[in-house]
Amino acid sequence: MKVYRHVNIVTCDQDFHIYLDGVLAVKDSQIVYVGQEKPEVLEQAEQIIDYQGAWIMPGLVNCHTHSAMTGLRGIRDDSNLHEWLNDYIWPAEAEFTPDMTTKAVKEAETTAETIARTRTIIEEILGYENPNFKVMVAPHSPYSCSRDLLEASLDMAKELDIPIHIHVAETKEESGIILKRYGKRPLAFLEELGYLNHPSVFAHGVELNEREIERLATSHVAIAHNPISNLKLASGIAPIIQLQKAGVLVGIATDSVASNNNLAMFEEGRTAALLQKMKSGDASQFPIETALKALTIEGAKVLGMEKQIGSLEVGKQADFLVIQPQGKIHLQPQENMLSHLVYAVKSSDVDDVYIAGEQVVKQGKVLTVEI
Amino acid sequence: MKVYRHVNIVTCDQDFHIYLDGVLAVKDSQIVYVGQEKPEVLEQAEQIIDYQGAWIMPGLVNCHTHSAMTGLRGIRDDSNLHEWLNDYIWPAEAEFTPDMTTKAVKEAETTAETIARTRTIIEEILGYENPNFKVMVAPHSPYSCSRDLLEASLDMAKELDIPIHIHVAETKEESGIILKRYGKRPLAFLEELGYLNHPSVFAHGVELNEREIERLATSHVAIAHNPISNLKLASGIAPIIQLQKAGVLVGIATDSVASNNNLAMFEEGRTAALLQKMKSGDASQFPIETALKALTIEGAKVLGMEKQIGSLEVGKQADFLVIQPQGKIHLQPQENMLSHLVYAVKSSDVDDVYIAGEQVVKQGKVLTVEI
Repeated sequence: MKVYRHVNIVTCDQDFHIYLDGVLAVKDSQIVYVGQEKPEVLEQAEQIIDYQGAWIMPGLVNCHTHSAMTGLRGIRDDSNLHEWLNDYIWPAEAEFTPDMTTKAVKEAETTAETIARTRTIIEEILGYENPNFKVMVAPHSPYSCSRDLLEASLDMAKELDIPIHIHVAETKEESGIILKRYGKRPLAFLEELGYLNHPSVFAHGVELNEREIERLATSHVAIAHNPISNLKLASGIAPIIQLQKAGVLVGIATDSVASNNNLAMFEEGRTAALLQKMKSGDASQFPIETALKALTIEGAKVLGMEKQIGSLEVGKQADFLVIQPQGKIHLQPQENMLSHLVYAVKSSDVDDVYIAGEQVVKQGKVLTVEI
Repeated sequence: MKVYRHVNIVTCDQDFHIYLDGVLAVKDSQIVYVGQEKPEVLEQAEQIIDYQGAWIMPGLVNCHTHSAMTGLRGIRDDSNLHEWLNDYIWPAEAEFTPDMTTKAVKEAETTAETIARTRTIIEEILGYENPNFKVMVAPHSPYSCSRDLLEASLDMAKELDIPIHIHVAETKEESGIILKRYGKRPLAFLEELGYLNHPSVFAHGVELNEREIERLATSHVAIAHNPISNLKLASGIAPIIQLQKAGVLVGIATDSVASNNNLAMFEEGRTAALLQKMKSGDASQFPIETALKALTIEGAKVLGMEKQIGSLEVGKQADFLVIQPQGKIHLQPQENMLSHLVYAVKSSDVDDVYIAGEQVVKQGKVLTVEI
């Protein structure tokens, strides 16, 4: 058992427990104790790591990104979504990814071929039985996929008992396209296909009206909110406060670097909070606790991984990050830890990161990838 | 003469010259050469610094902040402006600053006493004859200062031949207060007092209608735009595109850490760009070049310091920052330098900073202050 001592712990658990000068104990990949320091915990430790007043919180959960596009940072800025996709992103992706959509565009693959190819990939990944790989069927969007492909995707998701992940209600243009093509708005169209009755992650959800938000409240849909991408592509600001009030799960996400242009979750959570305050005209909206939960446990729920990650609780996987505020002038006065974690921290402040008990970042350096 | 070699230079001059693999030469505090490498420049060098492909751009110009409040980071989040000022900021400031407004609140000082005390401070600073100290008369705002104090402040600014700096049109509440008190909106009230005919920096300018923007275009007023503070206090998004189209000077600013909660200019410029795209529904608005100029030369113009700082040009003060993209995964592919300087760079990426030719930051460490 490893014990991390002299840490200020933001658990992000249900009651948002905070332990000042606490202790986190990890055995193999799991958390076995979190709370105030006790002699019996220290006695059982094989190793004690003294973090000297550092802050510890759960690893941040990014609910929607496109890892394969990470090489496309800065490929095209200052364009709206549809120009950006059609003229820059899809042509670039067609050159280097075996991804469903671009392959279909390139080779006019049939729906059955696309589904079969995708199913092979999904079954291979499911075969790894790695709890950190959460596989979903991800038809790109209601406007870029045919009705057939959307139906076959949902059928496959049901058969394999895995969720759907899809871009929905990202822009006004999308609503226009779907209305013209199917005579209804995107959400109603997807409802007709059965998407609202299957566990699904809808990325974006910017263009949702009041009735649609109410409808989502009784669905199996969760929202991955990408505030910076939605600004950069001039899509708008998603109605997050209304979604949360209606009881819809909302997690935070970066989208790809091509529309962000970072995968920086602290900055993303802060932007989410700032935008909702401005949009509502009420600075008390989306307060610190809401922001920290959205970055962690709520994101884990969106992905259906909340039993495993998203909070620091006994029995959960030991995924956590460590920030040492000492010597960082922009994290002073350090007593205001919760405020700084939302409003002042940068991703570059993260000193150490652990996944399933294994250290993967040490003093800001990634240990698992050669950079 | 010192020569900085193998640098990619973003000059931010009038024509937005970029020099790839260029050279910057500095003699004492001034830039004496900027451009492509030439043998005669290298020959004259007393010292050659090889920056190995780093990026160089002018020091960023923060047009509006409150340095004395830097200790108040995280004092109160999630509050709207007027609650935040009245219940948290002013009481805290009254405890530790000899600042005009709070002193007046605390001791019911007369206008004449306030002006006399302020004038003493201003004349002392003007006496330093330090070109890097730009002094302005700064009555806080039309709603927190009496009409007498606003008039006396402008008189003093005229006598001393220095600009005015004031918070204006920050919130809807402000418009309501001024309308009730004086029967007109804040801009019309300040126009009546003569503020629009004197070189002035108006911080915020969120609540400006079309007619007011047109009026500003023919005034001596420049705008200090504080996008993050305006979000955090739920004030709104300033009409920056309209102001720029009308010909009003706009610089970028952080406001204080108590409403930001960082003094991070790259993040501020990026937020300005992202918000204007979203607000206009047009991602081509506030493009990269506009953002980089707003962070540098436009800010210098707002402060009336454009002959001295804000761009890398011969004869100007050698104020510049250096970012080495190598080894920074979030600045790859590094060919997209201009994109990354707006959309991907963090303040923590700044390796070196020079002011008037003197290095003040080295490999991210501040050399002039003990932290």
